Amino acid sequence: MTQLIPIETIEEVLSQLDVVALMEEGFAAYSDGRAVVPPVGELIFEDPPGETHIKYGYIRGGDHYVIKIASGFYGNPELGLPSGSGMMLLFSQKTGFPEAVLLDEGHLTDVRTAAAGAVAAKHLAPSDVQRIGILGGGVQARLQLELLLPLISCRKVLVWMRDPGGVDSYLEYFADSGLEIESAASPGEVADGCTLIVTTTPSKTPLLSAERIRKGTHITAIGSDTVDKIELEPEILANADLVVVDSLSQSETRGEVFRAVEAGALRRDSVVELGAVISGRVPGRTDNQQITVCDLTGVAVQDLMIAQGVSDQVAQASRQQPE
Amino acid sequence: MTQLIPIETIEEVLSQLDVVALMEEGFAAYSDGRAVVPPVGELIFEDPPGETHIKYGYIRGGDHYVIKIASGFYGNPELGLPSGSGMMLLFSQKTGFPEAVLLDEGHLTDVRTAAAGAVAAKHLAPSDVQRIGILGGGVQARLQLELLLPLISCRKVLVWMRDPGGVDSYLEYFADSGLEIESAASPGEVADGCTLIVTTTPSKTPLLSAERIRKGTHITAIGSDTVDKIELEPEILANADLVVVDSLSQSETRGEVFRAVEAGALRRDSVVELGAVISGRVPGRTDNQQITVCDLTGVAVQDLMIAQGVSDQVAQASRQQPE
Repeated sequence: MTQLIPIETIEEVLSQLDVVALMEEGFAAYSDGRAVVPPVGELIFEDPPGETHIKYGYIRGGDHYVIKIASGFYGNPELGLPSGSGMMLLFSQKTGFPEAVLLDEGHLTDVRTAAAGAVAAKHLAPSDVQRIGILGGGVQARLQLELLLPLISCRKVLVWMRDPGGVDSYLEYFADSGLEIESAASPGEVADGCTLIVTTTPSKTPLLSAERIRKGTHITAIGSDTVDKIELEPEILANADLVVVDSLSQSETRGEVFRAVEAGALRRDSVVELGAVISGRVPGRTDNQQITVCDLTGVAVQDLMIAQGVSDQVAQASRQQPE
Repeated sequence: MTQLIPIETIEEVLSQLDVVALMEEGFAAYSDGRAVVPPVGELIFEDPPGETHIKYGYIRGGDHYVIKIASGFYGNPELGLPSGSGMMLLFSQKTGFPEAVLLDEGHLTDVRTAAAGAVAAKHLAPSDVQRIGILGGGVQARLQLELLLPLISCRKVLVWMRDPGGVDSYLEYFADSGLEIESAASPGEVADGCTLIVTTTPSKTPLLSAERIRKGTHITAIGSDTVDKIELEPEILANADLVVVDSLSQSETRGEVFRAVEAGALRRDSVVELGAVISGRVPGRTDNQQITVCDLTGVAVQDLMIAQGVSDQVAQASRQQPE
């Protein structure tokens, strides 16, 4: 019987999951060659403009395969609707039968993306982060910070948004978090003041320039996941001591690494995969003076891990309920 | 709100739909260049062996896009389970939001495949079919015949199955249909006796040879939809007066036409699309002595049309229900 999991249930069980550990496990399996992840399927719409991505795959020997649908329709806000939506589907790897439909409205993609950012910081940030910098004012700007907090002792934050009107609600959201959050006038100001920076914008021109990046900085680049989006000057990746991606194969067609290689600033064979760092096959940051960059474009194993985590948790909760 | 449509409801409303007309409309739009249908997504499994196909697309200016998941896990019957399963998903083309999850267990794929066979016969069979020939003993062998009956006056049928043990239940199924069904000892016997033949097997070697095909025969080839499946000797396509496919682009990588072109028996530019025949842009059969072949590999517009048809019918039924 196919289990239908509504958004309310998903939000409820998410708080009981260690999503960072799930992502680590998924990335390690992926970089270990134990995952099957075909190229992303894509539907492009013109009128109204929108796009839908279909990510799918499995880890060999596991219980499930996942198919994840995520769409962005950019005129939705004019209709009073969120631009993003989607769902995740879990199927048995033994029979092909559908096991769960997770009506997550895109929320699980948001959470697994933020969890991947936390994983990157856990393995690559310097041990003595003085201040956390966030670029962007959307859902990721909030979730990335939330998921960093259990992993990083630093409580000082500098945030920059293109639309400064969003700063107040950001401050309000974190009002009781014990964080000391200030707002920056420019991305450069964030670079000057922070050694752990997370970029979460849909920018199509670089926001951070190489000359402003301090020694000992780690940057996690979340925003660019297509051919045309870019947040970091290619020279930042050229100057970095270590450039890490979630997926080497996806970095051949999208994201910051794609753009830096295209620009001739970066050699593809100098880039390593996050899962290889997690499993210790490849060294991560080796001292606090290094500059490191992690470019995330989102991989189907993340969808698999979080959908499985939620589905297992729901099944467990229903078993524990008294009859 | 996403509408969840269980298999029972799907079976109920299907009887109220003109699926043949829906397929004609879909094929015409597709061959007219009004559809967006990216290449089929595929997941292959080794242990246990199985495959999952993801077909997706939309007709420009329409209400929805479809994502269809269909899987075949060939060890399932040993577990007492059907090998096929799947679901269809309908999303809004205006917002990207999911509108319906059709938990069809693969049934809608079966029906839309059979309906495409009926469309092919409607437009390509000779006007004086003396006997209908069916190769195969699976679900399609039954559904193809069922969907032909309203369109063809002939009531004589010759059926061949590799496993003759299935003949009795086939005869029993059609016991009250008014059909005169006999069983053939070989595919060649079917060729000798029939001028409308539907092939529905997963054969990997040709079952029908060119020398046995009579003048005035139409063959609809359903079974071959991959690189390695084949039911017709390439010479049958070479000798045919007209070779039709549901999708020219898919016929470059799979099906009978792919195999005949590979074998050097058929020129790709002599093949026409079913939708072009339906809309009258390309002539179909022009006399009863011609040999025609229609090779169907299954296109996402079929999934779109049938999923929309079911979803619309369910919505209409729920509006008509008294409060």
